[in-house]
Amino acid sequence: MSFPDDPKAPAAPAPDATRRPVSPPARERFRHWLGIATRWLDNDVYGHVNNVVYYAYFDTVVNRFLIEHGVLDPHGGDVIGLVVETGCRYHASLSFPDELDAGLRVVHLGRSSVRYEIGLFRRGASACAADGFFVHVYVDRVTRRPVPLPAGLREVLTGIADGGR
Amino acid sequence: MSFPDDPKAPAAPAPDATRRPVSPPARERFRHWLGIATRWLDNDVYGHVNNVVYYAYFDTVVNRFLIEHGVLDPHGGDVIGLVVETGCRYHASLSFPDELDAGLRVVHLGRSSVRYEIGLFRRGASACAADGFFVHVYVDRVTRRPVPLPAGLREVLTGIADGGR
Amino acid sequence: MSFPDDPKAPAAPAPDATRRPVSPPARERFRHWLGIATRWLDNDVYGHVNNVVYYAYFDTVVNRFLIEHGVLDPHGGDVIGLVVETGCRYHASLSFPDELDAGLRVVHLGRSSVRYEIGLFRRGASACAADGFFVHVYVDRVTRRPVPLPAGLREVLTGIADGGR
Amino acid sequence: MSFPDDPKAPAAPAPDATRRPVSPPARERFRHWLGIATRWLDNDVYGHVNNVVYYAYFDTVVNRFLIEHGVLDPHGGDVIGLVVETGCRYHASLSFPDELDAGLRVVHLGRSSVRYEIGLFRRGASACAADGFFVHVYVDRVTRRPVPLPAGLREVLTGIADGGR
Repeated sequence: MSFPDDPKAPAAPAPDATRRPVSPPARERFRHWLGIATRWLDNDVYGHVNNVVYYAYFDTVVNRFLIEHGVLDPHGGDVIGLVVETGCRYHASLSFPDELDAGLRVVHLGRSSVRYEIGLFRRGASACAADGFFVHVYVDRVTRRPVPLPAGLREVLTGIADGGR
Repeated sequence: MSFPDDPKAPAAPAPDATRRPVSPPARERFRHWLGIATRWLDNDVYGHVNNVVYYAYFDTVVNRFLIEHGVLDPHGGDVIGLVVETGCRYHASLSFPDELDAGLRVVHLGRSSVRYEIGLFRRGASACAADGFFVHVYVDRVTRRPVPLPAGLREVLTGIADGGR
Repeated sequence: MSFPDDPKAPAAPAPDATRRPVSPPARERFRHWLGIATRWLDNDVYGHVNNVVYYAYFDTVVNRFLIEHGVLDPHGGDVIGLVVETGCRYHASLSFPDELDAGLRVVHLGRSSVRYEIGLFRRGASACAADGFFVHVYVDRVTRRPVPLPAGLREVLTGIADGGR
Repeated sequence: MSFPDDPKAPAAPAPDATRRPVSPPARERFRHWLGIATRWLDNDVYGHVNNVVYYAYFDTVVNRFLIEHGVLDPHGGDVIGLVVETGCRYHASLSFPDELDAGLRVVHLGRSSVRYEIGLFRRGASACAADGFFVHVYVDRVTRRPVPLPAGLREVLTGIADGGR
């Protein structure tokens, strides 16, 4: 979806006024993939996947990646990842019963935090339908204070980071 | 939720590196309010409202404001608002059965677009639990091309804009 | 919603063939009430609250009743209620931004189980838009084996039961 | 999930008192299959897929079957299927990141209505985790009055009906 008649639309106002305009990311940018099937209720009254639901896809691709790599135990782990910021830009509509490819990479690894970038593509399409980010801060499950990323987690995250292995 | 041990966490990395750090907004900043009741399923396995659900609150406060002011007819209107970008920063956790106050204001009015800011507060609390934004571009329902904001809509939006009446 | 042209429609086939036809319940039948506000995403592509979402309302009215009466601690209780069966009959459509009244009563109290009936009414309307049921079996959180309903819970449930106080 | 200590639990009270006790259906009973992947937010605070979400799976398997067979156009069809009754029995818990097999069959075809049965199985498992039903009445999109099932739809439904081809 481009907005040639309204060049101001994609340019975000303050407090983001200084942000560089960025194009939708290419498939090559992502390091890990998950297939996602839309559901009937993902569509809202306009007949397209509602803007909220994209974040459910983000949550799913991130957490499933972590669980499958053995570095997240949502039921019993001592540390948990709290989401402190998320965002999404919508480039083209999606619609049930579309099937999607969700791409994931790590764009920032801090002492206690990680920032993911996610791209959603209609199955097989090269154009990115939406891209977003997701920032986790790791905290102690009980005290909810930030803790250093556990070594095993850091290793897994490095594997899908820019400049990672 | 503050992260004193990890000052880098709230500072977003590229491509947002130039963004000014911003504190959670105060209640006074908002121009319209809606009460929102959490639901059982809003909580995820960690016992708090899941990050995705905040966007369902955003969607609800924006669209209900428009419907109640007579400037959105989701079933039959000639123009509809497409969401092109959203974002949220999470400052404190919320949990079912919390009741919330959702504040709304308009921070940017373009030719075809509007950017809303939303703040979520636990009922009666002064601290903002989460704040976010939501950008609508108005398009023709059929052609999906941007159109100027209808006059009645622009008037309603101006009423909750910074510097508005 | 009545279906005069299709008298067979509301009559359920086997395995429910022997069920008595029942009319929508009246408001007087319910013993506890909760206001529920619809959300934008509750509507599906047909512009009405999707059939799935009614169960989110049921879950919310039951669990909030229990939490507010101090007999459910979802985070730390030794016993938890597992849902073993639910059902809903849809009599009239609902639509965002409707506000609803959800009525609740207990229709069966067993040794370890409770069956609730829920009725959803558009705010102030006398006609029931949907009614449903919800069966909880109480189990030990760890072993997941049924346990007798705790005395305090049984007392609270009796208070909204048919023939209760 | 069996409840040997509480034989009364699965026996539904009035108005369902006459219902025959039924065991979970076997895989062989179903005529059409769809793979379904759980999502992070499907889990509730107890760490299992919430009872509400099963109905989102039901909705998805039914509507996707209809769309893929060319007999449902949710955006433009003259007739639409209204859901008049649904139900679910929960036999075993499911949990993200489980992948599921959803089985579908038609158990009743009326003049204007169809009753589906759905079974959910953990990928590859023989035991049914949950089974449910879903009754559609077909109505004119505008008048919302029941209409005979269109011939093409009836043919597709017969293909997955008991005793069907």
